[in-house]
Amino acid sequence: MTKRPNVLWIMADQLRFDYLSCNGHPHLQTPHIDALAARGVRFTNTYVQSPVCGPSRMSAYTGRYVRSHGSTWNGMPLRVGEPTLGDHLREVGARAVLVGKTHMRADAEGMAWLGIDPSSEIGVRVSECGFEPFERDDGLHPDSPRQHWSKYDDYLVEHGFSSKNPWGDFANSGKDADGDLLSAWLLKNSRLPANVPEEHSETAYMTNRAMDFMTEAQEDGRPWLCHLSYIKPHWPYIVPAPYHDMYGEKHIVSPIRSEAERETEHPLLRAYHQARVCRSFSRDYVRECVIPAYMGLIKQLDDNLGRLFAWMDEQGLSENTIIAFTSDHGDYMGDHWMGDKDFYHEVAVKVPLIIADPRPEADASRGSVKDELVEMIDLAPTFMNALGCHAKPHVIEGRDLTPLLHGVDGFSRKYAISEHDYHWSDMARILGVPQEDAHTIMIFDGRWKYVRCEGFRPILFDLETDPDEVTDLGGSQTPEHIGVRRRMEAALLEWATRHHTRITATPEVLAGQKRAAKSGVLIGFWDEQEFKDDTGMAFDSLKPVGKQ
Amino acid sequence: MTKRPNVLWIMADQLRFDYLSCNGHPHLQTPHIDALAARGVRFTNTYVQSPVCGPSRMSAYTGRYVRSHGSTWNGMPLRVGEPTLGDHLREVGARAVLVGKTHMRADAEGMAWLGIDPSSEIGVRVSECGFEPFERDDGLHPDSPRQHWSKYDDYLVEHGFSSKNPWGDFANSGKDADGDLLSAWLLKNSRLPANVPEEHSETAYMTNRAMDFMTEAQEDGRPWLCHLSYIKPHWPYIVPAPYHDMYGEKHIVSPIRSEAERETEHPLLRAYHQARVCRSFSRDYVRECVIPAYMGLIKQLDDNLGRLFAWMDEQGLSENTIIAFTSDHGDYMGDHWMGDKDFYHEVAVKVPLIIADPRPEADASRGSVKDELVEMIDLAPTFMNALGCHAKPHVIEGRDLTPLLHGVDGFSRKYAISEHDYHWSDMARILGVPQEDAHTIMIFDGRWKYVRCEGFRPILFDLETDPDEVTDLGGSQTPEHIGVRRRMEAALLEWATRHHTRITATPEVLAGQKRAAKSGVLIGFWDEQEFKDDTGMAFDSLKPVGKQ
Repeated sequence: MTKRPNVLWIMADQLRFDYLSCNGHPHLQTPHIDALAARGVRFTNTYVQSPVCGPSRMSAYTGRYVRSHGSTWNGMPLRVGEPTLGDHLREVGARAVLVGKTHMRADAEGMAWLGIDPSSEIGVRVSECGFEPFERDDGLHPDSPRQHWSKYDDYLVEHGFSSKNPWGDFANSGKDADGDLLSAWLLKNSRLPANVPEEHSETAYMTNRAMDFMTEAQEDGRPWLCHLSYIKPHWPYIVPAPYHDMYGEKHIVSPIRSEAERETEHPLLRAYHQARVCRSFSRDYVRECVIPAYMGLIKQLDDNLGRLFAWMDEQGLSENTIIAFTSDHGDYMGDHWMGDKDFYHEVAVKVPLIIADPRPEADASRGSVKDELVEMIDLAPTFMNALGCHAKPHVIEGRDLTPLLHGVDGFSRKYAISEHDYHWSDMARILGVPQEDAHTIMIFDGRWKYVRCEGFRPILFDLETDPDEVTDLGGSQTPEHIGVRRRMEAALLEWATRHHTRITATPEVLAGQKRAAKSGVLIGFWDEQEFKDDTGMAFDSLKPVGKQ
Repeated sequence: MTKRPNVLWIMADQLRFDYLSCNGHPHLQTPHIDALAARGVRFTNTYVQSPVCGPSRMSAYTGRYVRSHGSTWNGMPLRVGEPTLGDHLREVGARAVLVGKTHMRADAEGMAWLGIDPSSEIGVRVSECGFEPFERDDGLHPDSPRQHWSKYDDYLVEHGFSSKNPWGDFANSGKDADGDLLSAWLLKNSRLPANVPEEHSETAYMTNRAMDFMTEAQEDGRPWLCHLSYIKPHWPYIVPAPYHDMYGEKHIVSPIRSEAERETEHPLLRAYHQARVCRSFSRDYVRECVIPAYMGLIKQLDDNLGRLFAWMDEQGLSENTIIAFTSDHGDYMGDHWMGDKDFYHEVAVKVPLIIADPRPEADASRGSVKDELVEMIDLAPTFMNALGCHAKPHVIEGRDLTPLLHGVDGFSRKYAISEHDYHWSDMARILGVPQEDAHTIMIFDGRWKYVRCEGFRPILFDLETDPDEVTDLGGSQTPEHIGVRRRMEAALLEWATRHHTRITATPEVLAGQKRAAKSGVLIGFWDEQEFKDDTGMAFDSLKPVGKQ
């Protein structure tokens, strides 16, 4: 195989690391994802750069930390001029195509300032974080001014599911005994079957759309990266039959939590516990209602991936397509007395990652498990490498995983970083924290997880002695913990003061700036002799001296 | 006076804080600058955000830290999409016009990616860091491929000074007894009179060009900010008669330096001492040759400013023009055994700042001296305020100085920050420091100046007990100094982890994000009652429930 491979980059939304059978879930069987792991590499320590959709994805799509790209929360436009994976791939003639969700919001003001028409080719690309949008659907269509009619809504109507909001009324509602709709925005309705046949659900639809794209791409002929980005198992938590009742109480893993956690004196953690979504998921009946639906959504996703992989085999696409499977963050589901995501326990910040590379170079690593510390931003340079793009260390902050895929040396990372801007939240309101100060940063070295909380003391977990993260050592006065905190703060300072925005000069350009003297800008030379002694050149060679 | 004032923002290049008579120089009289101070406010603690031209200026022109805009060294393009003072002023119908130097390099790659024609109106603006270029001249035109023929070269030719490089051969050379040219690129030639009459020198020419602009602007009628940006007293150090021999050895202030400094064991400081420009200026005969020329250049600048201010009085411009005078960084001139700039001693990082505001609100502060910690990035928001632009705290990191100008409360700053990327330097080469690690950051609280040196121990000065900064306490093991260092590191971490790139959402947008629930995205509600209890709204008001 000499031609460049294509890349199918599958992302689930809100899928926890531990809700796959290959990652150890005792009751949820995901044989198709497991099979992908068996023919690829399964990573067990992959961390997202923010435990929330938008910023996590902007990091994934740029290969850069949240601090660097600045889109710190959902709906915060990714600024015009922030280079994306799609931009880099286009330079080498490859397409970067979107099928599904990005959570991108266009930087309308930035485009206006630069005179970019949002409907132009460049304007559309800038509005879709660098992707060519084959199908864009963020999968949240409430009955409100935020509702955007999507192609999926058209699809539902075409198939007889017609209403003012087909997405809401069919894919994301159930029905009571009288036939009245019950919205899946409310958690109590999670156990109902979705009001749509599975074959017309969001997950099935988006799987079909990926097939449509790959069919088109075969005719087009250019190499491609396809970002197949599913909204599920993200809330609203509801799944079509038969998945809605595949799992019950006996399949629910006990919550990871302790009474000591609930009694924390840390103001920010206390505020989390007071936030509505955390109070909600701390109730057992909520977990018992939601988790079976969440598991059903994952099972349905696995089945659809099985269908997709089989189709790719039939089409002869598998042999030349690198397939990556991951998620943008996890879901607390009541663990640590918390709900949704937005903080740094493993269940929220650690995600599944499997990469199957069909090339012979990867034969040595098939079926292997890698415990290295990986960040989501590592995918961008990995895909760039696969598609023939040269490395761009001045822009890309992730590290190429190819050595791990090919079973050779060359990958290392000491720390994983994740950031969260909680200005929008119940916590900021409860604590009265100003917009500017409502932020936290996690730094994790594989054992110690340190969370800097602006305005509050740090939080610290030792995952070696406390893998469940139920004992916060952030205030511990033992010399060991004081020393660890100091070391982590120093590492964080080193990371935070690194170049994150020096993106306009390549290493070659930087190296060239050392040679300014030879261009005739001469600093600090006393006379001709000193110039010659230092540079080996005659001063006259630069300066044509003569009479006027 | 009800109409908006104009702003004349004068910047000298490489002018030290202490080389003005109003700032205490014992021999150099600068009566016109002093007179500006007498009718305005003189600031005595103003720090640039990088002690080198390009990044210092990019911070001045954007109101943002170097860390934020990413143009960390000379010639590093300011990225497309980085908002500038000019962009903000244009929004309110004011012009931002350049007359002189910016050290800007256009982001050609960024423009190409976004389809921006560099010759279009927007392209030109993006290439001139947001300014409308009335006259752009960075004032360094060596005999090399870097030479750009400038309008000033045309001017010299028109006035009979014709050669392949008029800037070099006339404005920046002297002559020996035989009439042979002697280049001012070599320090030994600094005492010669420049080979051009004063009236045709760079400083006089650029002064005239500012008058040309203001004449044109009176016809145009729109309010304006004019950035009159002189290249001198920056090297090449040479000044026309009669300024070349106004000062001699007796006018040279003794160097600020100690033998202990020379014996430092700090690797980075030792590397500075080994750099050519530092070795050069550590020699007394270099100081004795260069400093009189440097003083002459400043005296000439002061005389030209006197000429400009008198002309503005005649034209009736003074009564409606805020005049600010400052510099982009200082010059070591052999102090601390160092030359040029590029580090954080007061002589390099502290600059003169005088602002004279003709409006009646400023009457209370006329002639006052302000010791507050000011950063160069504070000018942008101050000028924005004057020209009627609303505050943009999500973009502008400087703080509006208007309260100080108007003698009221409202301005405060705990720390001044400055940064330097020394990847290009002799120091990086001597120490073998990789590009990524060759950076330092200063944080100064008005007493303690702490310099973080990636890979090396910090440097610390106590300006209260050691105003000359000759005693480095960075390695001191006294409890006080250990405590100070820890406090400064914590402050630096707080600063470094702040939002520097979250520029696409205003505070109002951020505040709006708290209200997502009301738009129908409902997270963590169990049932209708819980929704009503929490939001005060009926669930049905969002969700039109019905049968299909």
